[in-house]
Amino acid sequence: MIKVSVLYPNSAGARFDMAYYTSKHMPMVQKKVTTCKGISAEGGIAGGTPGSAPTYIAAGHLLFDSVGAFQSGFGPHAEEIMADIPNYTNIQPIIQISEITM
Amino acid sequence: MIKVSVLYPNSAGARFDMAYYTSKHMPMVQKKVTTCKGISAEGGIAGGTPGSAPTYIAAGHLLFDSVGAFQSGFGPHAEEIMADIPNYTNIQPIIQISEITM
Repeated sequence: MIKVSVLYPNSAGARFDMAYYTSKHMPMVQKKVTTCKGISAEGGIAGGTPGSAPTYIAAGHLLFDSVGAFQSGFGPHAEEIMADIPNYTNIQPIIQISEITM
Repeated sequence: MIKVSVLYPNSAGARFDMAYYTSKHMPMVQKKVTTCKGISAEGGIAGGTPGSAPTYIAAGHLLFDSVGAFQSGFGPHAEEIMADIPNYTNIQPIIQISEITM
């Protein structure tokens, strides 16, 4: 199983609408990308030391059987999904593809 | 539910022993930190564009009911857990605490 993580770096002026993200954007992604096996989302609270700012203001994760399953499922809908991003954030996210090992 | 993510940045010369991490380190953490409700781990495959390097070579995630449950469970074992890190990596990890929203 692989995980596609979309990480939204925290910074001054960063805007992120978690309500929109979890109620509109992520359900839309899951509906369109039929090869997706699961989705989750989280909002940053803090870094490793008390009172420190989180590195990421938010993150979303998508599970797939393989990198190929992600590419084939996401590709046809990429343009529409990307076009929705300004509706909840002004941040350029970092994409990380990982293999789940535990 | 909150998630404590330990992110290991990728770089030239980065060393990470996933077998040790998943068979020794993470089980040890789960056994000692009794407030932990779940653990997972992943290894970086790629970034968002084909052939690009992943931002993180590996990551581990710990679930807790609250930030307080993490602090009270982890604190008494922090020294011992940190002392095990050189056994699987030479990387200084980034810690991110997040609230699970979906």
